[in-house]
Amino acid sequence: MPLSNPNSSAPAVDLKSVYEPIKDELAAVEEILRTELSSETPWVDQLLEHSWLLGGKRMRPAFVLLSAGCLGTIKKPALQMAAALEMVHTATLVHDDILDEADTRRHEPTANSKWGNKVSVLLGDYLFTHSFHVASFSESTAAVRMLAASSNRVCEGEMRQNAWRGNFDLSEADYTQMISDKTAELTACASGVGALLSDGSVEQVESFRKYGLNIGIAFQIVDDLLDVAGEADTVGKTLGTDLLNQKPTLPVIHCLANLTADQRESFLELLRSGEAKPDAVIPILESTGSTEYSRKTAADYATRAIEFTDSLDSSPYSSSLRTIAQFVLARTR
Amino acid sequence: MPLSNPNSSAPAVDLKSVYEPIKDELAAVEEILRTELSSETPWVDQLLEHSWLLGGKRMRPAFVLLSAGCLGTIKKPALQMAAALEMVHTATLVHDDILDEADTRRHEPTANSKWGNKVSVLLGDYLFTHSFHVASFSESTAAVRMLAASSNRVCEGEMRQNAWRGNFDLSEADYTQMISDKTAELTACASGVGALLSDGSVEQVESFRKYGLNIGIAFQIVDDLLDVAGEADTVGKTLGTDLLNQKPTLPVIHCLANLTADQRESFLELLRSGEAKPDAVIPILESTGSTEYSRKTAADYATRAIEFTDSLDSSPYSSSLRTIAQFVLARTR
Repeated sequence: MPLSNPNSSAPAVDLKSVYEPIKDELAAVEEILRTELSSETPWVDQLLEHSWLLGGKRMRPAFVLLSAGCLGTIKKPALQMAAALEMVHTATLVHDDILDEADTRRHEPTANSKWGNKVSVLLGDYLFTHSFHVASFSESTAAVRMLAASSNRVCEGEMRQNAWRGNFDLSEADYTQMISDKTAELTACASGVGALLSDGSVEQVESFRKYGLNIGIAFQIVDDLLDVAGEADTVGKTLGTDLLNQKPTLPVIHCLANLTADQRESFLELLRSGEAKPDAVIPILESTGSTEYSRKTAADYATRAIEFTDSLDSSPYSSSLRTIAQFVLARTR
Repeated sequence: MPLSNPNSSAPAVDLKSVYEPIKDELAAVEEILRTELSSETPWVDQLLEHSWLLGGKRMRPAFVLLSAGCLGTIKKPALQMAAALEMVHTATLVHDDILDEADTRRHEPTANSKWGNKVSVLLGDYLFTHSFHVASFSESTAAVRMLAASSNRVCEGEMRQNAWRGNFDLSEADYTQMISDKTAELTACASGVGALLSDGSVEQVESFRKYGLNIGIAFQIVDDLLDVAGEADTVGKTLGTDLLNQKPTLPVIHCLANLTADQRESFLELLRSGEAKPDAVIPILESTGSTEYSRKTAADYATRAIEFTDSLDSSPYSSSLRTIAQFVLARTR
């Protein structure tokens, strides 16, 4: 993920600085992950190391810790939940790569391409169940419950996405619900559980959850948009895979709803051929203003997240949450 | 599963009666499962109904409730954990059927054969994560921790089994560890968590765990034995699938360790051909007394479980735990 969109006139937002106030805590989370993702069985250990290395920017742990920091001292249960959330995230990546038949992720071979689908199924299961083991050390059943409910919604969202492949009649509301569940639910959980573990009130937990939800939705819309309208070098992965996999995304859904009946039929034919390339699709999306509409929709969600951070007491933690939201907003431009 | 081995001279053990003292509690567990395994999305609901119907004899819930009953009143958290354990068990069945490429289970089409591997991956994930949601309502992080640790060992056992397919150098100790993890760990957890939720001491929890572990190991050895030496009508499934899948089981491991070097080589050749049929294998196993050895080993584990129940206060609950152990012992004959 680029730190800013080089096509954009928006100022670059430095994401590195957001980790500064939680540097020590993140190191402790990393230590938990390193310890938990190891096994005495060399064969299993090798798989777990793969999943540890799969970790990206540890954004979900950062949301837990920053949200906890906004409301009080960051205590040990927050570290446990931060590690648990990262493990759930990794589990979903491992199983996603099976569903997408993906060969590489972040320029590395995926578990399924290295060891096959069967091993990947078990590796994901191991990570899911282990995450709840780590979470149980938070000694908070409310936190475990939040993690379980969210993980479950992620699975339901994935099921829906899988069932809706090739369904271009999807409404914008259905799409939003799907990405809320499959992507934004975990960032929402991360922020919410951080607030919960610093003894936040029900209202506070809910508003931190909402922050994470808005961030996640904005992020996923931009991700879907970049898949068709981004530049391969900048995005860092093969473009057009959603089109080839016939995943309905916001620009496509908006476009279909705004074409004439004839235009719609011929666009649908292209989409269903399974051979739609970004170069052919972009002019159609532009004709209905659908890329711009998608950018604006994502920007609205990011803006709501920024507004929430304005309501927080000033601190290095709330400042980091604001910077993350600004970063997501900058990506929409 | 037959109530007794008709080839056996042992008296039939009536398994139905063991549910009698926990009839109402099991009905409540069934209600939790029915409610939790439903969704507003019809597509998802259909999958969850499949997994609900997949349920067999609800043995794991029975272990939770009976063990809890042995040490006190069966309270609501025990019902939650009983339902959660059944969901974890179902999740492992759904993913097992992917690994085994199985088309039918209990005479019904498997999820993977009906909806494909991708849907089955997600259904299993849904069940795993949902089980922890249900478990979190027990309001006991110790119980959640026990469930998570056990689920995790099950996954590690499955990983080992998958890695060891075709590895006929496996020692008996490795085999026992593998089946302890992949099968017996969940029955151990069920008994242990039942004791925990009736405020059992650390020693009591451990001894109930051990009971479930012994039952599970005995059960799996018999299961492995019946796959090669059972009768299809009685066992109720296709025989010889472990041989075809080149899974090393106790009779085969024991036999290989007791053949001459030449005999061993030729048996290995047969096993590795992937075409070994029970009819051809049984005489070889009999020549080293390996089916009898396996029966005796299983009987030893079942006997230890029976001995544990002798140490319990007399009650309908402890009586049921004894009957289950006697049933497993009868299966070894």
